[in-house]
Amino acid sequence: MSSAELYINLTNICSNWSALNSLSNGSAGAVVKANAYGLGIKEVGISLAKAGARDFFVAIAEEGVELRRAIGHGPKIYVFSGHMVGDTSLLKNFNLIPLINSAEQLAFHAENSADQSIGIQLDTGMNRLGMEGAEFEAIKDIILKLNPDLIISHLACADEPSHPMNEKQLNYFNAITDNIDCKKSLAATGGILLGKRYHFDMTRPGIGLYGGNPYSGSKNVVGLKLPVIQIRSVLPDETVGYSNTWTAKKITKVATVSSGYADGIFRCLSDKAMLYHDQIPCNIIGRISMDLIGVDVSNCGENPDHLWLLNDIQSIDVLADDANTIGYEILTALGQRYNRSYI
Amino acid sequence: MSSAELYINLTNICSNWSALNSLSNGSAGAVVKANAYGLGIKEVGISLAKAGARDFFVAIAEEGVELRRAIGHGPKIYVFSGHMVGDTSLLKNFNLIPLINSAEQLAFHAENSADQSIGIQLDTGMNRLGMEGAEFEAIKDIILKLNPDLIISHLACADEPSHPMNEKQLNYFNAITDNIDCKKSLAATGGILLGKRYHFDMTRPGIGLYGGNPYSGSKNVVGLKLPVIQIRSVLPDETVGYSNTWTAKKITKVATVSSGYADGIFRCLSDKAMLYHDQIPCNIIGRISMDLIGVDVSNCGENPDHLWLLNDIQSIDVLADDANTIGYEILTALGQRYNRSYI
Repeated sequence: MSSAELYINLTNICSNWSALNSLSNGSAGAVVKANAYGLGIKEVGISLAKAGARDFFVAIAEEGVELRRAIGHGPKIYVFSGHMVGDTSLLKNFNLIPLINSAEQLAFHAENSADQSIGIQLDTGMNRLGMEGAEFEAIKDIILKLNPDLIISHLACADEPSHPMNEKQLNYFNAITDNIDCKKSLAATGGILLGKRYHFDMTRPGIGLYGGNPYSGSKNVVGLKLPVIQIRSVLPDETVGYSNTWTAKKITKVATVSSGYADGIFRCLSDKAMLYHDQIPCNIIGRISMDLIGVDVSNCGENPDHLWLLNDIQSIDVLADDANTIGYEILTALGQRYNRSYI
Repeated sequence: MSSAELYINLTNICSNWSALNSLSNGSAGAVVKANAYGLGIKEVGISLAKAGARDFFVAIAEEGVELRRAIGHGPKIYVFSGHMVGDTSLLKNFNLIPLINSAEQLAFHAENSADQSIGIQLDTGMNRLGMEGAEFEAIKDIILKLNPDLIISHLACADEPSHPMNEKQLNYFNAITDNIDCKKSLAATGGILLGKRYHFDMTRPGIGLYGGNPYSGSKNVVGLKLPVIQIRSVLPDETVGYSNTWTAKKITKVATVSSGYADGIFRCLSDKAMLYHDQIPCNIIGRISMDLIGVDVSNCGENPDHLWLLNDIQSIDVLADDANTIGYEILTALGQRYNRSYI
């Protein structure tokens, strides 16, 4: 079997959710968009619902359908992209709450789904998704008559606690929603750590559930074990991999493992990241190819039959640093060929 | 509907295969590993089998199973990773031919599947996958008694026609296989372009089937259309996206499209790549987030309801240049949330 094995610790995801729920002034929802950050919306959703999460957030209606089928009736499911053309029957049949992002979406919703619950997403400065303040003011009376279930906004710089943008967005969110009697939500994981003024009635942790920064209390959730296909001795001046980018300086024991950039192990990690044989770090050498990676296993006493790319030593954030990205992208890139084992 | 739409042109894949088959001295197989480079092993496999491909190559046995189920009996399916522990019943039940990479794999095969066909993969200098020359010589008699179906090796530098490694690998492959009466294969797409001395009995085009370099005759195969969720006017000094990395210098019409790095649109393309409204290029602005991208659509006369990331203007190789990678990685990263439409 040359499929790699991806271990996903659902117990730790639930424990991370409980910790962030306890940190929250109100209750914590759970962000499970992008297939629960690549870890499986079905399995993660069921576990979190059992752990007590009542409010879930997805990016698009299609994800909400998958989640609803998994977790059944009961928990609320909010859709960040709101009500798009083509969503109407999905929102209705699967009882999804669109977070309306514009007057245009509101009009479309009123025309097509007038009797169905909505939430409102406000833009408070990120200029990404959500109604502008002036737009909201102009149609506030109409919105309030629809009795929205939740009003949210999203912080652009919550991972940098001292960034003035945080306070600016908080003040703006307060200013436009102050007299409105409706559940409110502003904070994702980073926002929870900014303190209770940011929490309102509901928080929306995402990355903190899945073991990534900025929540340092988040327990690691993933392990990734790559099988070794073969091991060879490479002599001095011999090269390894495409374009001969790595040349042996001395006799080197090289393992070829099954997995590559087609499995979301970014090609830019070539010659940079480590794999682990228990506690022993082993350098990736040469270019990562589509399905194969060369690794220097000279320091391993025995010949390993597998090596770890993600473990308690090398977290998603450590690997993200090597790839000049963030842990979120390491997670969502995790490939489809892995055997997923849930713990 | 906020799912993006990925268009995959099966006609062009087949036409690319036919062109590369005609260029080949012998016949052309088809490399469909990594889910046919992200485009769908089932759909691509069926089309290529209909177009006349009789020899398919996959990375691991599990992929061979999926392919066999799609294309039925008849075509041969070779597995690059060879015969790994755990593969035995898959290889047997789905009639897959392992490309044996080492004496160790050969012994394992002989113990477990003695009556089943094998191929041999030789390493001729890439030091990645395949039997070393000396190892092969030592067990050549045993191998030849097993009557291997195919002997292959793989070129490390075929995309650089003038690289001395090509001639070196060719000579080595000839030297160790010269007197052996067996079908042979050395060239993938790049190798086909190196000329007929590299072709032997079978070539193994991969990227050339899917519209990527280095085969300049390869027709584009993918289109990727991202839906616009909303459009806003951003005023001078306002910022867009996470960490406020983009600041408006003038009033800018900003579209937020549904798709992000969770869909394989690499985060390192932030502030770099273009999206297209027909022929009009529109800059990505600010950081690409997990499910959303900000785009400057000020130059579009009308408000677009979708924008194209991949089209006949911006090919996988153009986008790969922006991401400092290769077209192969753009393809294999294509996400699971897209609606895939086959043409």
